[in-house]
Amino acid sequence: MDAESARRKAALEYYRRHTGQDYVLKGSPHDPQSIADFAWIGLERNYGESWSRPGLDLRTKSFITLSAVAAQGCDEALKAYIAAAHAVGITKDEIVEWLIHLNGYIGAPRANAALAAARSVWQSMDERGEGAGNK
Amino acid sequence: MDAESARRKAALEYYRRHTGQDYVLKGSPHDPQSIADFAWIGLERNYGESWSRPGLDLRTKSFITLSAVAAQGCDEALKAYIAAAHAVGITKDEIVEWLIHLNGYIGAPRANAALAAARSVWQSMDERGEGAGNK
Amino acid sequence: MDAESARRKAALEYYRRHTGQDYVLKGSPHDPQSIADFAWIGLERNYGESWSRPGLDLRTKSFITLSAVAAQGCDEALKAYIAAAHAVGITKDEIVEWLIHLNGYIGAPRANAALAAARSVWQSMDERGEGAGNK
Amino acid sequence: MDAESARRKAALEYYRRHTGQDYVLKGSPHDPQSIADFAWIGLERNYGESWSRPGLDLRTKSFITLSAVAAQGCDEALKAYIAAAHAVGITKDEIVEWLIHLNGYIGAPRANAALAAARSVWQSMDERGEGAGNK
Amino acid sequence: MDAESARRKAALEYYRRHTGQDYVLKGSPHDPQSIADFAWIGLERNYGESWSRPGLDLRTKSFITLSAVAAQGCDEALKAYIAAAHAVGITKDEIVEWLIHLNGYIGAPRANAALAAARSVWQSMDERGEGAGNK
Amino acid sequence: MDAESARRKAALEYYRRHTGQDYVLKGSPHDPQSIADFAWIGLERNYGESWSRPGLDLRTKSFITLSAVAAQGCDEALKAYIAAAHAVGITKDEIVEWLIHLNGYIGAPRANAALAAARSVWQSMDERGEGAGNK
Repeated sequence: MDAESARRKAALEYYRRHTGQDYVLKGSPHDPQSIADFAWIGLERNYGESWSRPGLDLRTKSFITLSAVAAQGCDEALKAYIAAAHAVGITKDEIVEWLIHLNGYIGAPRANAALAAARSVWQSMDERGEGAGNK
Repeated sequence: MDAESARRKAALEYYRRHTGQDYVLKGSPHDPQSIADFAWIGLERNYGESWSRPGLDLRTKSFITLSAVAAQGCDEALKAYIAAAHAVGITKDEIVEWLIHLNGYIGAPRANAALAAARSVWQSMDERGEGAGNK
Repeated sequence: MDAESARRKAALEYYRRHTGQDYVLKGSPHDPQSIADFAWIGLERNYGESWSRPGLDLRTKSFITLSAVAAQGCDEALKAYIAAAHAVGITKDEIVEWLIHLNGYIGAPRANAALAAARSVWQSMDERGEGAGNK
Repeated sequence: MDAESARRKAALEYYRRHTGQDYVLKGSPHDPQSIADFAWIGLERNYGESWSRPGLDLRTKSFITLSAVAAQGCDEALKAYIAAAHAVGITKDEIVEWLIHLNGYIGAPRANAALAAARSVWQSMDERGEGAGNK
Repeated sequence: MDAESARRKAALEYYRRHTGQDYVLKGSPHDPQSIADFAWIGLERNYGESWSRPGLDLRTKSFITLSAVAAQGCDEALKAYIAAAHAVGITKDEIVEWLIHLNGYIGAPRANAALAAARSVWQSMDERGEGAGNK
Repeated sequence: MDAESARRKAALEYYRRHTGQDYVLKGSPHDPQSIADFAWIGLERNYGESWSRPGLDLRTKSFITLSAVAAQGCDEALKAYIAAAHAVGITKDEIVEWLIHLNGYIGAPRANAALAAARSVWQSMDERGEGAGNK
């Protein structure tokens, strides 16, 4: 197996470990074919090269990712990472503690937007009958 | 009354002065209990410690807050602060003047997003029959 | 013709060249009258003073604008500039190449948000029966 | 006088009112000639078109500008605007009140960077023997 | 002891736990007196209210803070938090792992700026004869 | 040659094409060994995977990179990319045109910071006796 396929294999494995789901390349009939390159490059860089490194555990990497995404105000991405954080065992109360800690460093407007993202995730999980570790 | 309750009392008073409304902690059945800590900490820091200080008037603090929030592109928070700005007597035309001034400092994309936030507030106010000071 | 009307005339011409459409000042019954000043100042600065300059071609200016807007995470503005990029002949595959290049410089969360903006534009174009140069 | 020269004249006048100094185009032997276009466009947009509008007073516009610049973390620009704020009569204590208010909205790291910018201005002013309104 | 002094006491204790140093309010002869309010408010909010909460350990809070600060590009603040991270036992290699992980989420320019901040801290520590856990 | 070494080889080649210089991993006696991983990952992602793609020319990719970096306010990175832009034939006047165009989209404070970065590059080039294409 060459390095390229090793990277993709690691990407698919760590995507599953982090999110609890198999990766599915979501295409659309409106996309040009080259979209697959964008998707694989993104997946292989982050899941194949970063999440797969042994130096920090998944829980720590989750908080690093969540914090960077919240600080940038990328609310759609944040929803995906909050859902994934619950998949690696981070509880709702820990998400709240993370928000309280972040508030002083990123300011109330971004912290409140992050809370709205969390609430959207929590509602979806409850609607699907998946609890997120605590109430 | 100890310092903690004084801070909360000031927070509730200045929230009312700034927004024209009583503060209501909005919970959701999907929230963990710790969410109340996040909400009170946010309210007490900003309304109990900052808005309550005498050094700058409410109108000036409104423009400071609006400008910081627009510069960060936090559009949901911006709607709340534009509605509150009208509650302390800032007119629609002053909001437009603020946007014209900001445009050169934050760039057209963020300024246009702030205008969209303002228009959303104005439409809601008109639908509720509340004018915002001028047309 | 004085300088002011020359600037507006250039603005209207370059808006048309860049977007393929005539500029229409979109008002709303909820707007104060001063909104027109905001709109004209924005249009004249960017289209009348920047896009109209001869030093860089429209295609290059499109990529400059797209990159700055994506880096700031202004997703609504981005949709307008991606649609305009197609109007000056940039293809869907070039938009994907731009996203792949940007990914390493602005990070995956903002790059993915930019892809979502592009997909929204592509779907609208297909629904209106306008192809965007390639699949 | 045509519109262009009226805009430049207003720009020079409002630059002086806001900063207390005459505008001097600072060139460098390393600059290409076109740099003058960049400088005049910037000056005319902000001082000739925004600061010169009557809808908001200079003090309010100063706080709007300061807040947008601090929220973006543009520390060199911030120094210039803090010095200019003192030139229109804003005191050191008001700058501190502004920082305290901003802290909750932009977070401690950017607020502390803004304080460092203020301190740099204050030291320079004291070294030149110019007090800034209060101690 | 009232709530205010409890908050300050907690702030001083957690500042020491996080940074390994006693807090010293750094004044300057150019500061107005009100600067002490800014300093105490910042210290009490973050160290007295957030770092002192039991829900997440100091190491996790360090990575949250570092990530938010790096994502915002606040390089001076980042130096202080990297030095503090070493004080709670995070190694140099873990800082590098954190940077590798962040790179894909905040982009190479901000990640490289964060590396420069780390190198500045490491050089200072070596010059003072303090190792940072690993080479 | 496996995929990993192909990626590194492409990275080294495109780094040279873009910057006009051979890549040298700059280490420091204060760095932990893992720093090489950070450096190679960054180089291989951007130069080995993005700059090496055929879909957009080097000049267009230069403007994309410059715009994203200026919009984020990463001034040290910007200096490196402006110097590299000159190495692929972009002139000083084109850098000024780029700044004039950007000004309306990222605001004056970031545009002025980008100009300061450009001036720093121009001064260094003149001091080394390298002209940058035009005056």
